[in-house]
Amino acid sequence: MKKETIAVDMDDVLADAYGRIIEMFEKEHGVQLDKEWMKGKPYREAFPGDQLEVAQSYPHQEDFFDHLEVFPDSQRVMGELYERYDVYIVSAAMEYPFSLKPKRDWLAQHFPFIHWKRIVLCGDKSIIKTDYLIDDHAYNLETFSGHPIIYTALHNHNESRFERMNNWNEIANKFL
Amino acid sequence: MKKETIAVDMDDVLADAYGRIIEMFEKEHGVQLDKEWMKGKPYREAFPGDQLEVAQSYPHQEDFFDHLEVFPDSQRVMGELYERYDVYIVSAAMEYPFSLKPKRDWLAQHFPFIHWKRIVLCGDKSIIKTDYLIDDHAYNLETFSGHPIIYTALHNHNESRFERMNNWNEIANKFL
Repeated sequence: MKKETIAVDMDDVLADAYGRIIEMFEKEHGVQLDKEWMKGKPYREAFPGDQLEVAQSYPHQEDFFDHLEVFPDSQRVMGELYERYDVYIVSAAMEYPFSLKPKRDWLAQHFPFIHWKRIVLCGDKSIIKTDYLIDDHAYNLETFSGHPIIYTALHNHNESRFERMNNWNEIANKFL
Repeated sequence: MKKETIAVDMDDVLADAYGRIIEMFEKEHGVQLDKEWMKGKPYREAFPGDQLEVAQSYPHQEDFFDHLEVFPDSQRVMGELYERYDVYIVSAAMEYPFSLKPKRDWLAQHFPFIHWKRIVLCGDKSIIKTDYLIDDHAYNLETFSGHPIIYTALHNHNESRFERMNNWNEIANKFL
């Protein structure tokens, strides 16, 4: 029987990219950002005025993706999902040309069981056809033709249109 | 009205990758390969024995993709397609980690009008959903759910299951 297919986003689903941006911003400016206040705010509100350009510049740095932390339990759960489903990594990486190889390398390091055939680095995700898409961005889920699942991130707390997963144990409970 | 979507492969559809492999092989070995004899043969037959490993090693070289020639008329026709359709580049690049950024750069150089949102570097293409896929490899077309179009390359001359385009003017005639 054909397995069901799951597309899994990378930044802020497997890799703590937003956390790294906040960490870099706080370090550069000697400040502590109020994460409670940032909840539910898109980037342009969470980083008002000139701050946005600074925050958005970090992922353009060549070594940004080398430093990203793996989300808790994602390696174990992904390993189990990989056995039962056809799992694909689908990451909108094309905006950041320097990220392409580091992203591939990051996956090889932290998720070595994922075959290169199952990795997609793209721009928009509207032409991706899988049964499920787990993603933190509503704009990726809006155009998706399968079952969309939003993965909780600071910026998407107020989004209510999609089934929500708050952590990898919830994903395990749904799929395994 | 929503535009139709066309996914266009890169190697041997836009970029003369096979031509470059042949050129490198001939130069390294001081031979002239018989292209007539190679017609319709998959790589493993076109490069028998130890030759296969040599030929397959070239695309793993970091600068391989910098040197690829653009196929005649592809830039003009792609420019016109881009106006009338939602055109995506879908290239199976993930096997060659060093190719990721060079491929993105090659597209920026030769097809500067293609937005980064429209570029997909992937492994297998089975989860790509567009109305058309233009590709030289039967194994990509076999799993495609839309209308598959095979683009003539040395290795696919005997493939008869798909609508065939021999050059970019034929593509223009079909779509424009």
